[in-house]
Amino acid sequence: MKITRIGLNRNEIALRESLFHVANGYLGVRACFEEGTPADVRSIRGAYLNAFYDLTPIVYAEKMHGFPEAAQTIVNIVDQQGITLWLHGEPFSPFTGTLLLFEQTLDMALGQYIRHVVWRSPAGLETELRFCRMASFYAKELMTIDVAVTPRNWSGTFQAVSTQISDVYNDGDPNDPRKASERKRRLQTQDSGHHNGCMYMHCQAIGSGEVMACAALHTSDSGLQGVCSTYPASNSETLSGKAEQGKTISFVKWCVYTDSRRHHDPMSDAQDMVRDFASLPIDMWYARQRTLLNDLWDASRIIIEGPPSLQTGIDFAIYSLFQSAGRDGISSIASKGLSGEGYEGHFFWDTEIYMFPFFLLTHPQIARALLDFRYATLDGARQQARLLGHKNCALYPWRTITGSECSAYFPSGSAQYHINSDIAHAVITYYDVTGDLDYMMEKGAELLVETARLWLDTGHWKDGQFRIDGVTGPDEYTCLVNNNYYTNLSMQYHLRSTLRICADLERAYPSFSARESFGLTESEKQAFQEASDKVLLPYDETLGIFAQDDSFLQKQKLALSSLPKEAFPLLLSFHPLAFNRRQVCKQADAVLAHFLYEDGIPEDVMRRTYLYYEEITTHDSSLSQCVFSMMAARIGETEKAYTYFMNTAHMDTENKQGNTDDGIHAANMGGTYMGIVFGFAGLRIHANGLSLHPCIPKALERYAFPICYQGKRIHLQVDHETITLQENSTEPISIAVYGLHYVIDKQPLCIPLKHISNS
Amino acid sequence: MKITRIGLNRNEIALRESLFHVANGYLGVRACFEEGTPADVRSIRGAYLNAFYDLTPIVYAEKMHGFPEAAQTIVNIVDQQGITLWLHGEPFSPFTGTLLLFEQTLDMALGQYIRHVVWRSPAGLETELRFCRMASFYAKELMTIDVAVTPRNWSGTFQAVSTQISDVYNDGDPNDPRKASERKRRLQTQDSGHHNGCMYMHCQAIGSGEVMACAALHTSDSGLQGVCSTYPASNSETLSGKAEQGKTISFVKWCVYTDSRRHHDPMSDAQDMVRDFASLPIDMWYARQRTLLNDLWDASRIIIEGPPSLQTGIDFAIYSLFQSAGRDGISSIASKGLSGEGYEGHFFWDTEIYMFPFFLLTHPQIARALLDFRYATLDGARQQARLLGHKNCALYPWRTITGSECSAYFPSGSAQYHINSDIAHAVITYYDVTGDLDYMMEKGAELLVETARLWLDTGHWKDGQFRIDGVTGPDEYTCLVNNNYYTNLSMQYHLRSTLRICADLERAYPSFSARESFGLTESEKQAFQEASDKVLLPYDETLGIFAQDDSFLQKQKLALSSLPKEAFPLLLSFHPLAFNRRQVCKQADAVLAHFLYEDGIPEDVMRRTYLYYEEITTHDSSLSQCVFSMMAARIGETEKAYTYFMNTAHMDTENKQGNTDDGIHAANMGGTYMGIVFGFAGLRIHANGLSLHPCIPKALERYAFPICYQGKRIHLQVDHETITLQENSTEPISIAVYGLHYVIDKQPLCIPLKHISNS
Repeated sequence: MKITRIGLNRNEIALRESLFHVANGYLGVRACFEEGTPADVRSIRGAYLNAFYDLTPIVYAEKMHGFPEAAQTIVNIVDQQGITLWLHGEPFSPFTGTLLLFEQTLDMALGQYIRHVVWRSPAGLETELRFCRMASFYAKELMTIDVAVTPRNWSGTFQAVSTQISDVYNDGDPNDPRKASERKRRLQTQDSGHHNGCMYMHCQAIGSGEVMACAALHTSDSGLQGVCSTYPASNSETLSGKAEQGKTISFVKWCVYTDSRRHHDPMSDAQDMVRDFASLPIDMWYARQRTLLNDLWDASRIIIEGPPSLQTGIDFAIYSLFQSAGRDGISSIASKGLSGEGYEGHFFWDTEIYMFPFFLLTHPQIARALLDFRYATLDGARQQARLLGHKNCALYPWRTITGSECSAYFPSGSAQYHINSDIAHAVITYYDVTGDLDYMMEKGAELLVETARLWLDTGHWKDGQFRIDGVTGPDEYTCLVNNNYYTNLSMQYHLRSTLRICADLERAYPSFSARESFGLTESEKQAFQEASDKVLLPYDETLGIFAQDDSFLQKQKLALSSLPKEAFPLLLSFHPLAFNRRQVCKQADAVLAHFLYEDGIPEDVMRRTYLYYEEITTHDSSLSQCVFSMMAARIGETEKAYTYFMNTAHMDTENKQGNTDDGIHAANMGGTYMGIVFGFAGLRIHANGLSLHPCIPKALERYAFPICYQGKRIHLQVDHETITLQENSTEPISIAVYGLHYVIDKQPLCIPLKHISNS
Repeated sequence: MKITRIGLNRNEIALRESLFHVANGYLGVRACFEEGTPADVRSIRGAYLNAFYDLTPIVYAEKMHGFPEAAQTIVNIVDQQGITLWLHGEPFSPFTGTLLLFEQTLDMALGQYIRHVVWRSPAGLETELRFCRMASFYAKELMTIDVAVTPRNWSGTFQAVSTQISDVYNDGDPNDPRKASERKRRLQTQDSGHHNGCMYMHCQAIGSGEVMACAALHTSDSGLQGVCSTYPASNSETLSGKAEQGKTISFVKWCVYTDSRRHHDPMSDAQDMVRDFASLPIDMWYARQRTLLNDLWDASRIIIEGPPSLQTGIDFAIYSLFQSAGRDGISSIASKGLSGEGYEGHFFWDTEIYMFPFFLLTHPQIARALLDFRYATLDGARQQARLLGHKNCALYPWRTITGSECSAYFPSGSAQYHINSDIAHAVITYYDVTGDLDYMMEKGAELLVETARLWLDTGHWKDGQFRIDGVTGPDEYTCLVNNNYYTNLSMQYHLRSTLRICADLERAYPSFSARESFGLTESEKQAFQEASDKVLLPYDETLGIFAQDDSFLQKQKLALSSLPKEAFPLLLSFHPLAFNRRQVCKQADAVLAHFLYEDGIPEDVMRRTYLYYEEITTHDSSLSQCVFSMMAARIGETEKAYTYFMNTAHMDTENKQGNTDDGIHAANMGGTYMGIVFGFAGLRIHANGLSLHPCIPKALERYAFPICYQGKRIHLQVDHETITLQENSTEPISIAVYGLHYVIDKQPLCIPLKHISNS
């Protein structure tokens, strides 16, 4: 369970900073070199706290009514990564001297990132160095850097200069809409200094006023002497000692981060915590980390027999999700997790549609925390609905940190009303998988009703059909359309499930009344029912497929094959008008609709729809290929599914999108997980239970994984002959496989694999 | 031919600054008080040179490929309006003391704006003051302020402090998309001082580097002594003398403006010119102005017998057009003319569609200069086409000063491809009215062909129809639609007329070949023909009307009657999503299409289309009511036409849109002219001649106007009985009236007026 990169590659510095970042859902630190990088090497030196944000006014060239005034942005916080080693007077840098060994490893079983170097200095001194980092899953505020230095052919002086620096900038690119538009300093130092051997800093985000603090101290058994200094925007501690050939000098830098969104007194909390944490031996923290990760892997690991790189890709996906997810109801999962600043640390729909399913099936308590975040921002969604001219309902912002809209370009932002049913989808599947009626009673049902109401206020009736005009679907290469198929189909599920869950609540709690709790009258219920029954789902009789929207299939096809490779992603080489008017998709849209909402869609229509859109999709979005993979498996195109899956599972480990340097693609990590579970295994979550429809590509011998359902753990294993199902509790569970119902319990149940022809 | 306002109204200061501005197509000076206004009074102190611009980077929150990097903005230039009068030690201000008379008058026959004041100072001194301004139509660089001061009950000291100030700012409002987003200083002073009794300043626009200069000197017969001073951002000259009761002191401030876009050496040109101009008596300049205006009115005045305010409104419309139009091929007509900064001094489609017809029918040489501006920026249009992904064609920018796109919001900006056929419409009607084949040969045909090619590259064939997807029509309340009726119909005329004119050229000039000149092959000609023959014109069979676009009639109607008055204009109180998805129009779109392109549209369809859209149009755009007026006349709703016309003709004189303080609505001035000529008189321009279809509303006894056609002047007069036509040349002209052809010559031809029933 390791990812290893050997050798120093100047063009991969920033990429590996993403890949080897350490994070725990609260804090994330990019794997920048402790000693820094030369100015001509691209590095994005960064550390982040989930949902710790700054606020900046949005400047519009033409501002219209209801456009958001300001945007939240994740803050690049105080840099505690800095450690410069002076080895008998020479500063260590892998960019000078000679590297005899340079190896970076992420150990996903231990939860550590290790950089192992053997370096010959310009003067010829050879030294072995080992830097080991951990973001503790046990204590969310803690990050450690454990340094070991062994002189191979010399003895002499040793110094380590360890720093805290608040003079940090957020990265930016005015020409890439996926990044913040300007490089910007966001922190103001309020207090910094040393106290009892602990360096501390207390900073405020300039626009938002939110506060973060950090504290660091060093422990060592190597007899090092520490001297502290404080400068306007930095602290440092210099550890000095004697180095002897063959003897290892080691020390640990204990770094704690706190912030005003989670801590009552960030500054004093940080100092207290760092002393507290450092009073225990580092090995004990490593043991805690390992134990916690054992549980993670037990509950979620997908084992495959197949290409080793694929197992690594899948492990990395699960590990990344675990590193990225907020668990406190204040935060969610940013597009880049905590590995970078891309998309400004905002939370989008991909949390619910691409990442939530992993947590739902393996760590339902984290899944619930993700829903809590949405419930906590329901008032923000009510306000966003009002800003857009809706009454008495909620519309979640397209991108946000604290619950207000941060999208500055509404055609591919706030116009994506489907975010409401995407969030509802998570709430509904949470209910269907956990059966957690209490949660629905307390939070879930209110969210469902308030978001469902938006549809009635947005849509209208014409010729006996319920229509939704002027929204944007998931595919942002076509904006502001009428009757987007994905949106309308998801609305249908949203309205119907809301009615179902309200009825379940009324049955389960005789004192509960949706009318009294949410003002949900019978006539409103009927309006939900009618709109869902009669919603327009644009269908093309000639092609026998669903249309992405009312007009999509009337447009000209963009000749994708005639474009050079450099033309992709299209959004960086064409004006939006050039692709908006054509049949071309950035990502799955109708295909995603069929993945999520297949009930009642005839097999042949699903198949034709898939094949049609596959031809015109560029996969410029990292959210695309995993869906095509799952739906290829669904229609029996198992080998094609595997090809898409390989791209998905290697997206960051092999930098397939070319921008992993900005951070990992968190949604795609969820897509990798789903590629096996929902793709090859064909899992679907229904109101009345789970169903499976397994297949297996030729390149895999076997795959196996556990899932958690109604508090029980089910183990599934699939090879080319047999599906094996087993459950760990005393209570048997019913599950459908290929449409037949089976009861599973502790005894392995074997079912022959169906070999599906794909033509 | 005067507009007069009596009394000082603190809430109308900025409004009257617009109304009484003086301009001559090159320079424009708002009618700000020479002595200034108190800080709590809204005044927009400004002066402008047509197409003299600054450049500022456009900041996008999310910038996409092909978005313009920078925008041009008209510059508020050096303020030469300042004159403070010290009357026996008291500074004159209408905001202090007592006003015994306060009268502002625009004399449109003389071309002067006069402020006439009788003021009792706080100390009780009574003085009569007269400020007369002129922007010379004879020498475009010249503006004069002619001041006369008569003490009524006192004798004593007199001083006039006359200034030039470069510390000026452009106005801005970040919340109004119709204005620049920020208040900004745009000029940097490079040189200023006095030389031989002449003050001068030389400034550079900070972003564009363009240079403007100005020079001013004073002449007087009243024995005043001048003393000059220079400060970092201002010059002044203090004129001192003795004032005697009953005796008038007078002086003239001669102000000259030059700029680097028109003058080789702006600074020295300005100084030379001001001396040159001031060497002639001011009365001679007044006489020149009057003579020139006599010709203007002779060639263009519409005489009505009806409400006097209406005659004034029509006179003001024509006068404003004459004040606003650039005549040098470098400039065109800004949305606010030269009376304000609204829409940043940009040139839009309204020049061609709303204002060009006036010049075409009265001053064809100015019409040609307006076309020259477009031809001069054809390369910019070629570049804009490339930026938007088109090859080998031209797409004019939606808003521009020098020919590059300045629209920062493409859905209601660059997506308005109809600008191409709007400009083509002007070229084609210029040809049809003047028969100027040489112009077509030299410039017109190339422009037509290059702009026509855009349509072939944009549209596509489906099911035997030529479709144009993803553009925005004139009605900006619906953006990015497929098959906008206006766009498609205008394209048809554009393509057909281009073929016709190329054929005319090939007939007239045996050496000319469209193939050799523009690479226009037979197959491309055929493609033009086929696209125009088979273009999709969306028609609704049930309603029997043309649809604004493919999906417009499927949308929900916005209940306009349920909205309070404050909700309008909708764009200032609703998010675009709220109206984009509804059936609601900011302005005429399909109705405008039928005004411009009525050929082949059945009468009943035209009528039903009109009535349908009338119900859902807010007229939030100042371009709307004039078109509804003309089309109401067209379908026989003469009285309704009159109501719209009254709103049109009084829009600025009665501040109907509520924002005349930002400047006049230049397009609406064109709309006022057209309301009579194309509306009530029903003039239409065809390839084979003119046609008329006159009617007259009850409130008018008579209307009459001249037009210029093929170098001849035709006089038309209409009363409730008779249409009288007369022509001034020896060569008779054929003209169609009510569909019958008549030949007119010097003898008045009388035709009975048809009384059209409107139901």
